[in-house]
Amino acid sequence: MIGWEDVYKVVVAMAPLYFALILGFGSVRWWHIFTPEQCGAINRFVCFFTLPLFTFEFTAHVDPFKWNYRFIAADAISKLIIVAVLSFWAKCSSKGSYSWSITSFSLCTLTNSLVVGVPLMKAMYGPMAVDLVVQSSVVQAIIWLTMLLFVLEFRRTGLDISSGSGNDTRVQSVENGGKDLEGINESTLSSPSYHYWRLMKGVWFKLGMNPNSYAVFIGIAWALIANRWHIEFPSIMEGSVLIMSRAGTGTAMFSMGIFMALQEKFIACGTSLTIIGMVLRFIAGPSAMAIGSIAVGLHGDVLRVAIIQAALPQSITSFIYAKEYGLHAEVLSTAVIFGMMVSLPVLIAYYAVLEFVH
Amino acid sequence: MIGWEDVYKVVVAMAPLYFALILGFGSVRWWHIFTPEQCGAINRFVCFFTLPLFTFEFTAHVDPFKWNYRFIAADAISKLIIVAVLSFWAKCSSKGSYSWSITSFSLCTLTNSLVVGVPLMKAMYGPMAVDLVVQSSVVQAIIWLTMLLFVLEFRRTGLDISSGSGNDTRVQSVENGGKDLEGINESTLSSPSYHYWRLMKGVWFKLGMNPNSYAVFIGIAWALIANRWHIEFPSIMEGSVLIMSRAGTGTAMFSMGIFMALQEKFIACGTSLTIIGMVLRFIAGPSAMAIGSIAVGLHGDVLRVAIIQAALPQSITSFIYAKEYGLHAEVLSTAVIFGMMVSLPVLIAYYAVLEFVH
Repeated sequence: MIGWEDVYKVVVAMAPLYFALILGFGSVRWWHIFTPEQCGAINRFVCFFTLPLFTFEFTAHVDPFKWNYRFIAADAISKLIIVAVLSFWAKCSSKGSYSWSITSFSLCTLTNSLVVGVPLMKAMYGPMAVDLVVQSSVVQAIIWLTMLLFVLEFRRTGLDISSGSGNDTRVQSVENGGKDLEGINESTLSSPSYHYWRLMKGVWFKLGMNPNSYAVFIGIAWALIANRWHIEFPSIMEGSVLIMSRAGTGTAMFSMGIFMALQEKFIACGTSLTIIGMVLRFIAGPSAMAIGSIAVGLHGDVLRVAIIQAALPQSITSFIYAKEYGLHAEVLSTAVIFGMMVSLPVLIAYYAVLEFVH
Repeated sequence: MIGWEDVYKVVVAMAPLYFALILGFGSVRWWHIFTPEQCGAINRFVCFFTLPLFTFEFTAHVDPFKWNYRFIAADAISKLIIVAVLSFWAKCSSKGSYSWSITSFSLCTLTNSLVVGVPLMKAMYGPMAVDLVVQSSVVQAIIWLTMLLFVLEFRRTGLDISSGSGNDTRVQSVENGGKDLEGINESTLSSPSYHYWRLMKGVWFKLGMNPNSYAVFIGIAWALIANRWHIEFPSIMEGSVLIMSRAGTGTAMFSMGIFMALQEKFIACGTSLTIIGMVLRFIAGPSAMAIGSIAVGLHGDVLRVAIIQAALPQSITSFIYAKEYGLHAEVLSTAVIFGMMVSLPVLIAYYAVLEFVH
């Protein structure tokens, strides 16, 4: 069983994140240090400089040849379970829809693994857990966020005739400004290759616009080369990356605080959607991960880490994409904000309960 | 004699600072990431959050009971030598003026001790040197910057009738929009106590407006308490300070890069003033420090540290004050920018030459 000193360790690891969050919030709401336009500057600073270098720093130092591929398999299985459940729901339930499936997938699976995950996991299970959470963040950035972009572009380019959900196509045709449904289907069928290229262009464009994508791709490429030929990062470059990456956690949380302060209310999407979001994030996601982990035979601390890292707060990138594609942005904003606020007790509860798992 | 590996160590310590500087510069000049208003946000972020916590972190961890008071005495003597020379010049030379004496004092004595000094000194002489540079930064913030504020306020409130320099009063009356010189003198003489309170109010107001002052005062108060009664910083607070203070160096240099990008030209004040500024900063300041150090009997590495820390680039705060009081801001901006650019070779030259001093 975990003792109070273990809980305190976790609180000590998380408190600075909340401190930076509150400073960011207060700078806008209480002290009026930044104008709304200036808030955008902090966000851009984080988005283009500190966070990519922070991500790069972690990604470049993993050893892909020593990854725990069983853990990654468990992660993949958990995501496939969720995709299967959501597809089944979209096809068979009268309430099911393609759009809500995308959002639910985001809520279930995409976590803020580096900024929140690394300090938390280090406090709970030490360096081994940090290794795992970095692995899952790399896979999330390369595979799952790219897939999310793909389905969002797919939805936007109007190619989603395959879903066949009446509910969803109705939503779509409304979103397309009431264009004739038959017309859309005809045009999409008559020029599939045009649409395919438009889709791929959209995905690559978004990836290319996101400095974090570069950071992960370059980072993992470096990690592969460095570990294959045993090359060390020159200390002059290491220092240059570190000077900005050290600012990553603080500035990212500060920027999230500013984002919270700019919202009219913390819960932007109504109580019932908030509850559904929290259940998907903190219960459905970790449950699927538990099934996947047990399926591949994880046990001990690796199993615990696998489950807890699935219960981290919502990924901020998932919100940014939701906003860009106009898909339930208010639900994801609530998941990010409210999720961050409730995550401390939730994660400690998981930590305590998982001690009984062997 | 120092070898190439020593020089390389210094380059490795300084390169990240230049990297952050170039990112800041490029973000405005090349990539147009920030609008002019947004540039202000980064500056405010540094000014109100990262830099004060960075300063606090260093200040709170010094042990004032173990300070090297001989080093501090050397520092004080060097400043008094400079004050004496400048006063003599202001009184006796036809070109001498009170205003230029203030600016020359800034240029000779006020350095960017923490952001540039700490990494540089650590690379050159190890933790002992970091200790010394932090001590000098605390004294600079508490005594010398406060004194600078005092003389600037003194000058502004029109009390400087004592200087008696015709040249200077002429400048002043021009600056006061051509008000009658006799009128100023009369009013200042008729209400000295009013002016005294206005002056003190101005100084305290500026100190109160500067979060870095708070940081140093609270930091040193904590250091005194903590070392007197052997109290440790609670780890939860330590982490909260660190999350932002770690961003200090990177964001401060980034912000200086933005500042450089916003200037129309690097050398805003003409070549001859730039040369005078560089001579005062990199030759006069360290020379005075060398005299002071030898006077109190410093030797070995402490002597070397004392001289090199006096040759660090110009303090950014001194530029900010110059701008606020409208006193030769373009000279100090050039000293900050151009000084930062030339400081690497200059500091390495000092490092190499001082090896021959015993």
